[in-house]
Amino acid sequence: MQLAIVLYDGFTALDAVGPYETLGRLPDAETVFVAEETGPVRTDTGALALTADRTLAEVPHPDVVLVPGGPGQSELMTHAPLLDWLRTADATSTWTTSVCTGSLLLAAAGLLRGRRATSHWLALDMLRDHGAEPTGERVVTDGKYVTAAGVSAGIDMGLTLLGRIAGDEHARAVQLLTEYDPQPPYDAGSPDKAPAHLVERMRARSRFTLTGDPAPSR
Amino acid sequence: MQLAIVLYDGFTALDAVGPYETLGRLPDAETVFVAEETGPVRTDTGALALTADRTLAEVPHPDVVLVPGGPGQSELMTHAPLLDWLRTADATSTWTTSVCTGSLLLAAAGLLRGRRATSHWLALDMLRDHGAEPTGERVVTDGKYVTAAGVSAGIDMGLTLLGRIAGDEHARAVQLLTEYDPQPPYDAGSPDKAPAHLVERMRARSRFTLTGDPAPSR
Repeated sequence: MQLAIVLYDGFTALDAVGPYETLGRLPDAETVFVAEETGPVRTDTGALALTADRTLAEVPHPDVVLVPGGPGQSELMTHAPLLDWLRTADATSTWTTSVCTGSLLLAAAGLLRGRRATSHWLALDMLRDHGAEPTGERVVTDGKYVTAAGVSAGIDMGLTLLGRIAGDEHARAVQLLTEYDPQPPYDAGSPDKAPAHLVERMRARSRFTLTGDPAPSR
Repeated sequence: MQLAIVLYDGFTALDAVGPYETLGRLPDAETVFVAEETGPVRTDTGALALTADRTLAEVPHPDVVLVPGGPGQSELMTHAPLLDWLRTADATSTWTTSVCTGSLLLAAAGLLRGRRATSHWLALDMLRDHGAEPTGERVVTDGKYVTAAGVSAGIDMGLTLLGRIAGDEHARAVQLLTEYDPQPPYDAGSPDKAPAHLVERMRARSRFTLTGDPAPSR
């Protein structure tokens, strides 16, 4: 079994590393980080690079496809080399998955048409614009398509899918190994829990950041 | 302000990336990934490499030091180049922090003597052997030393310290941006919650994995 995690300039690191650390601990499976070219791929902050060990062309038929999100996604919504690869990989995948705005790339490839899916809370409207049916759930499964909400939701998605593939016992063991017993010091992790003024401020900014335009200064 | 995240062969990716994605979003701060040599550094699974952009020598006085854990830690408990750097960096740091078994490296450098600290639940006894006073809390602050429990606890540590440094408002904004509203599909993330047989199995194995000996086959 092969899990391919797609990297591109400006992805968000935790989107990829959360599921890598959970779902990537499938028994007897290979996890491979792929990108258009091999080598270091910079994250959205610029402060970190993850290595793509294989090109997209070298990994045409992974069993599980995982697409992280991040500001760089907005540059790729009509980028044929990636969208063509997603369609080809999806044609033979067992599971096609995303975290955060990675679902917008799946949708841009035409894979989520009419399907229930999710994304970063700021991107749910754009997901609808691309033919999906957005929901507010943290992890959404529709057939073989599993999409997660923003950034950290990929950890929950990874554990959920790990349980589906390898069984609850194995998933619990990975949860214990990674000591995933979250205790956030605040309770502001979703738009219905965070202070309203923070939600409004981010919505105002998101018109810029999610479309790739320069963000207004803070 | 400068945050230095230390990489070494066999670290656990989420230990580093969890705090990077939260604490690394400090306003007006630089995050830099450092290692003995620049270039790609492989994680414990072998399936992923993160890039170290600077050598330890190039970053002698970060304001915040962060040491991730991982099986590779066991190879470094007497490794002078790293332990000397930790002592030097700690002499001028504002905060010295760790995730998972990263605290064993801080302890090996003599920085946690008599201090309350934590580590991966399988490593708490070893932490005591190195002079610290282990606690069962997920994030432990003793003076300027902030240690987190296993792997995913670095996210909670990062948000906690972000709040201390940049204020609750900023930390809540980062929690909302990263949609950190965890909903694990199981409740097995700590030894007091997981099924007893899983805990026992991991304790039996840990005598091998935490000392760097070859793990027994599954």
